[in-house]
Amino acid sequence: MKEKVIEMIEKRGVSIVDLAQLAYELQVDYIPITLEDAIENIHKVLEKREVQNAILTGISIDILAERDQFEEPLLSILKRDDSLYGIDEILALSITNIYGSIGLTNFGFLDKIKPGIIGKVNDSKGVQVNTFLDDLLSGIVAAACSRMAHSYGDSKIEEQEIQMN
Amino acid sequence: MKEKVIEMIEKRGVSIVDLAQLAYELQVDYIPITLEDAIENIHKVLEKREVQNAILTGISIDILAERDQFEEPLLSILKRDDSLYGIDEILALSITNIYGSIGLTNFGFLDKIKPGIIGKVNDSKGVQVNTFLDDLLSGIVAAACSRMAHSYGDSKIEEQEIQMN
Amino acid sequence: MKEKVIEMIEKRGVSIVDLAQLAYELQVDYIPITLEDAIENIHKVLEKREVQNAILTGISIDILAERDQFEEPLLSILKRDDSLYGIDEILALSITNIYGSIGLTNFGFLDKIKPGIIGKVNDSKGVQVNTFLDDLLSGIVAAACSRMAHSYGDSKIEEQEIQMN
Amino acid sequence: MKEKVIEMIEKRGVSIVDLAQLAYELQVDYIPITLEDAIENIHKVLEKREVQNAILTGISIDILAERDQFEEPLLSILKRDDSLYGIDEILALSITNIYGSIGLTNFGFLDKIKPGIIGKVNDSKGVQVNTFLDDLLSGIVAAACSRMAHSYGDSKIEEQEIQMN
Repeated sequence: MKEKVIEMIEKRGVSIVDLAQLAYELQVDYIPITLEDAIENIHKVLEKREVQNAILTGISIDILAERDQFEEPLLSILKRDDSLYGIDEILALSITNIYGSIGLTNFGFLDKIKPGIIGKVNDSKGVQVNTFLDDLLSGIVAAACSRMAHSYGDSKIEEQEIQMN
Repeated sequence: MKEKVIEMIEKRGVSIVDLAQLAYELQVDYIPITLEDAIENIHKVLEKREVQNAILTGISIDILAERDQFEEPLLSILKRDDSLYGIDEILALSITNIYGSIGLTNFGFLDKIKPGIIGKVNDSKGVQVNTFLDDLLSGIVAAACSRMAHSYGDSKIEEQEIQMN
Repeated sequence: MKEKVIEMIEKRGVSIVDLAQLAYELQVDYIPITLEDAIENIHKVLEKREVQNAILTGISIDILAERDQFEEPLLSILKRDDSLYGIDEILALSITNIYGSIGLTNFGFLDKIKPGIIGKVNDSKGVQVNTFLDDLLSGIVAAACSRMAHSYGDSKIEEQEIQMN
Repeated sequence: MKEKVIEMIEKRGVSIVDLAQLAYELQVDYIPITLEDAIENIHKVLEKREVQNAILTGISIDILAERDQFEEPLLSILKRDDSLYGIDEILALSITNIYGSIGLTNFGFLDKIKPGIIGKVNDSKGVQVNTFLDDLLSGIVAAACSRMAHSYGDSKIEEQEIQMN
């Protein structure tokens, strides 16, 4: 299923490296990581079933909205990415939450600033419906950041325990 | 939009009174309420935009799954109401949360026991796709219970303050 | 830190086996598990940092409320386990969410029915403050159920993929 | 209880106007509001019981940590505002969620950028424990922004409906 998810993301114009780049930039000032670490962590996030379900559902809604498959008033809400809709943020949050609540801050920051690929996706609204996609991407990147922070925290604690023995 | 939401729920075989009945039964042992109070509280819940968005989105997904509009593997996941899917619970939780976290317990209880109309909707899976509908109904009823509990709590506090003066 | 967490739970009168028993009973009708599997899964849940933080914080609040360390009106709210309080459910939910939203239903069910050790802990309110403890226990058991459901789901999918090759 | 909550916030060095200022700045580019509107909306947020409970609990934890009332390892985690702790974000999120998920983005942005009073509170860590306070403030401001966005959205919809009749 992970392959299907990556394929779906790429078809919408987003690569794993685009996402890894953002996660790398957000964390590099705090913990010693490389872009390769970030790529690996994006992959780990995409292996989680809850994450896959959120992505498959969200991107499918975007696509079906493009094809006018929803009824009104939902169709217009989706097409204009109504700022009071909120279901896109909810789905994205279910991704971020997989690695605990520390990802909330990065999610909100990414969703507000829309750096890199997230901004690109947001700008291409009008051509394609990306109501869910941009939030999902923020969720994936924030989750990868949390995962890296946890891994680094754990390795530091282990180190301390080894030194104490 | 509230009318559209009620119409959509009714088309799926569920009435406001069905939902009010469940809310009434869950709360009548704790606070002095009538079925009319429960009906009014279900209506108040359905006036909230976040609730409306969750219902419109969830029921639309059920309907589009019935019409085979989703691609695999999501289509099969939706049609068999895969217990590991989780997005239906997430949407329902966004309804329950509107009146705070005290609704979580009632939501989980309703979703597990499936009393009254929720059980009926669950049993009619196979005929129609109700993957989101049953969770949404649990969310609406749990939210109405929270609303009634808060209202009663507030009125009791006011009473105490009046007596103290 | 895991040892500290288990020690804290046990000091409040709860054993790992008590919790595993509940997780076992909730899942045994759906997937082939033993009590040993349930014990192992409770341990895995308790290894997660987010879970540890929620438990340490919640039980500490219970203990400090017993010692009258909070100011009014919070002290009275905590001591009588006010049904409109809600922060205990929020902390417990952060445990359940670690394995995705499918744990919500079991959490709500446990928190409503209060079977086994959860009921015992609830009944001993009055002697000790267990405002957070009973919700935390429901959260831990629900998380272990989700973990077992995910593991079983993954192993079944692997099996299918092997058979298809 | 609202007075008690405001008193507690002010004792920690934060005024209602400080918070309203941030909410005003975040929304003024999108909807026609004044600083007075923002002040009124901060007050409305603080009237909600769930919000009051989160604030009372969070600030009390900060104060009790200052007085060394928690045991280790939690005491050190609280005192150094460990970035992997996460319970502070969870409590703050329960405030933001009261007006739906659209507040998530503003919450994360505020928590990352720490503008105005939030930055001040963050900088005074060391002198006092503000582990929960800074997140709570971000949650309150984000909730007020959501409330203003919803109010404006509702008034615009009403206007459209009047024009259509």
